[in-house]
Amino acid sequence: MTNGHLDVLQRAAKIFDEVIIAVAFNSQKAGLFTPDERISLIRETVQALPNVRVDHFHGLLVEYARAKEAEAVIRGLRAVSDFEFEFQMALMNRKLDSSVETIFLMPREEYTYLSSRIVREIAGLGGAIDAFVPQAVAKALREKFPHSCRQPAVD
Amino acid sequence: MTNGHLDVLQRAAKIFDEVIIAVAFNSQKAGLFTPDERISLIRETVQALPNVRVDHFHGLLVEYARAKEAEAVIRGLRAVSDFEFEFQMALMNRKLDSSVETIFLMPREEYTYLSSRIVREIAGLGGAIDAFVPQAVAKALREKFPHSCRQPAVD
Amino acid sequence: MTNGHLDVLQRAAKIFDEVIIAVAFNSQKAGLFTPDERISLIRETVQALPNVRVDHFHGLLVEYARAKEAEAVIRGLRAVSDFEFEFQMALMNRKLDSSVETIFLMPREEYTYLSSRIVREIAGLGGAIDAFVPQAVAKALREKFPHSCRQPAVD
Amino acid sequence: MTNGHLDVLQRAAKIFDEVIIAVAFNSQKAGLFTPDERISLIRETVQALPNVRVDHFHGLLVEYARAKEAEAVIRGLRAVSDFEFEFQMALMNRKLDSSVETIFLMPREEYTYLSSRIVREIAGLGGAIDAFVPQAVAKALREKFPHSCRQPAVD
Amino acid sequence: MTNGHLDVLQRAAKIFDEVIIAVAFNSQKAGLFTPDERISLIRETVQALPNVRVDHFHGLLVEYARAKEAEAVIRGLRAVSDFEFEFQMALMNRKLDSSVETIFLMPREEYTYLSSRIVREIAGLGGAIDAFVPQAVAKALREKFPHSCRQPAVD
Amino acid sequence: MTNGHLDVLQRAAKIFDEVIIAVAFNSQKAGLFTPDERISLIRETVQALPNVRVDHFHGLLVEYARAKEAEAVIRGLRAVSDFEFEFQMALMNRKLDSSVETIFLMPREEYTYLSSRIVREIAGLGGAIDAFVPQAVAKALREKFPHSCRQPAVD
Repeated sequence: MTNGHLDVLQRAAKIFDEVIIAVAFNSQKAGLFTPDERISLIRETVQALPNVRVDHFHGLLVEYARAKEAEAVIRGLRAVSDFEFEFQMALMNRKLDSSVETIFLMPREEYTYLSSRIVREIAGLGGAIDAFVPQAVAKALREKFPHSCRQPAVD
Repeated sequence: MTNGHLDVLQRAAKIFDEVIIAVAFNSQKAGLFTPDERISLIRETVQALPNVRVDHFHGLLVEYARAKEAEAVIRGLRAVSDFEFEFQMALMNRKLDSSVETIFLMPREEYTYLSSRIVREIAGLGGAIDAFVPQAVAKALREKFPHSCRQPAVD
Repeated sequence: MTNGHLDVLQRAAKIFDEVIIAVAFNSQKAGLFTPDERISLIRETVQALPNVRVDHFHGLLVEYARAKEAEAVIRGLRAVSDFEFEFQMALMNRKLDSSVETIFLMPREEYTYLSSRIVREIAGLGGAIDAFVPQAVAKALREKFPHSCRQPAVD
Repeated sequence: MTNGHLDVLQRAAKIFDEVIIAVAFNSQKAGLFTPDERISLIRETVQALPNVRVDHFHGLLVEYARAKEAEAVIRGLRAVSDFEFEFQMALMNRKLDSSVETIFLMPREEYTYLSSRIVREIAGLGGAIDAFVPQAVAKALREKFPHSCRQPAVD
Repeated sequence: MTNGHLDVLQRAAKIFDEVIIAVAFNSQKAGLFTPDERISLIRETVQALPNVRVDHFHGLLVEYARAKEAEAVIRGLRAVSDFEFEFQMALMNRKLDSSVETIFLMPREEYTYLSSRIVREIAGLGGAIDAFVPQAVAKALREKFPHSCRQPAVD
Repeated sequence: MTNGHLDVLQRAAKIFDEVIIAVAFNSQKAGLFTPDERISLIRETVQALPNVRVDHFHGLLVEYARAKEAEAVIRGLRAVSDFEFEFQMALMNRKLDSSVETIFLMPREEYTYLSSRIVREIAGLGGAIDAFVPQAVAKALREKFPHSCRQPAVD
């Protein structure tokens, strides 16, 4: 979860009555954090937003969205490369369940080029990532990569 | 107004309580239809949607949106070229008034490549445009281009 | 093989006298299906197209194309991201053998955003994929992922 | 007609039995050359290609293609911006007449970034354009812009 | 000249010993400001940058660059649509004179989506443009569009 | 290192007084060649360029650039997909250290679509790669893939 995701979430929380952040519990993908760690980091980050709830789901997002009677799935759009992948996902979801609409919001332009992959790489190299992710995530990343690459940059 | 615009409007009308279609009355741009004709065509097309209102405005969209206390500006996104222009507009509008959010919806994929410029060109060449625009617009376009290029395609 | 691939193949079969679908037998990439399974699935899917042959090859595509005296390599183009990768491949192939031309066809727009990666992911999560792939492929995918994620979507 | 168009034409002439270059005679667009001048320039340029014919048409391209029983419309693809416009055109044409297929070919990479608009601008500023267009076109452009901007580039 | 152009200029002035802003004096294009007005606005804006000079030229940019013995032409890159046009221009310039290199710099991300066309449109509608252009340009735009569209945004 | 990288390097060496090629020594990524092999291949390739030095670094590029008092980081831009990734990297680096500027150069258009991933794949399939990479790299690739896929392309 980067500051870009948080920014999109805050915008969504202003427009809609209730927003659910739903973490996918699919065993195939092994991320840097476990699903439980991710939920806990997100909870800590969004606690100031009263109409935002954190949840998780198994299986398909559209089935979860329908079960929750969600009016729409909200996604952030940053760049052209996002655009195509997000459109593929949104159209596939629409084919799977035509009642689930996807809505796109745009983060602040300073987050437009923020990528969680690059943030993670910088953290792995010992760089300062506090400008890119919420405080709880920055702390957790520093714990994941304690001394990594803390050798001097040049010999 | 193409079937793609209508499709985005119908999706918006399902998600939001009230949707306003606002036609810009700026004298600089001389379109194929006058603003009054456009309003009348849109009214005829959307009359079956009870929570959609047709209006017009002068000057900046953000000022109109604020005056109407709109929660968001809704735009359809079809293609990569849309994406960049729409992002420019949305970011400029956000700079002009940070309280006005822009929301992007995606039309049916068969409308993804629908362009009002190409529709108009086909109409001008005497082609059938009924599959691309609402019935009222198709009728109005046929009246604008009555016999145009109705000469045989090859001599 | 998705419905998008099949659609491109059907278009190619209308234009050209003979079309060969050539499956690459390169050991490096381990796909979901073995090369033999892929050939058998493709054979089952294209049997109604009399001028389409299924074959396989080792090594470089251009060498295979030249050996078969193919007039052109046919590729489907769906999206901007395809476009760049396909152009890289086509230019590399042209450098390797300038006599091998690449031709691009466009699938139906409803297949424009169809991606075999997403189809496979949906299949892995127990979603219905019959709208996205030929019947034989859908059956084979269901056999690959028999009970996977068939747990309820929410607990 | 640039060297990029000629390159695409030569590739098409190798793959297909007969290729027609069809100039659109639509009065709306006033180009640098009249339709008759364009036909004459193209004729001069393609005379060495025995299976290429030059023709013209009124109205819609798909009607012309059907009347000529063309198997496909051939277009060159150079860049991402082409890609979207060409896809719009191809899909519109397919809607107007599903029997007309569009085929995309890729020019030599040195022509990938060649744009007739920029060539024309350079010609208007007195620049040398012989590397970008066929000989007949270069000669005709020099006649259109005889002394234009032949003032020294700096004072 | 927007804040994005100014930002790119400031970055160039840090890297290179001397930077020339060269305004093209080509009669074909009639902009909002005359070339003389543009030069005067640019002079006022860049006066704090000691190694930046303002100049103008007739004809081709490459001829001007060679006459000035410029090491490179500097361009700002903001978005994908820029990218393709700028590459076309840079490759054409390289063909016209292979000794003239083009260098691309990236403005601050908040200027990434800044477009002079949209700024001008906002100015024409009476919107505040002080956040988008240098002070001198904002003043000049206000003088060009004194009362324009100062009617209330809604009636 | 492809001919595209070499081309960008040669252009940079003409514009700047000194250019350093810095190989990242980060243990996470295991490439085809070891960092020492890469340095040795680069050294052999660039020995004719007197103002180019080959070096390596640990950790973040911006820290290395600052330690070397580099005026700018130079990157080649080939295609739209490059563009977005390179902009993400450049903006992240700017956030990490605002004094480090990134400069983009454009390789020759025949290298625009050259990708090290595809070159490596062709080498793995036994294809001729001498047109795509410097001589030293071609030799080293042939040693890495001695007999690979030298079976006939068709059986």
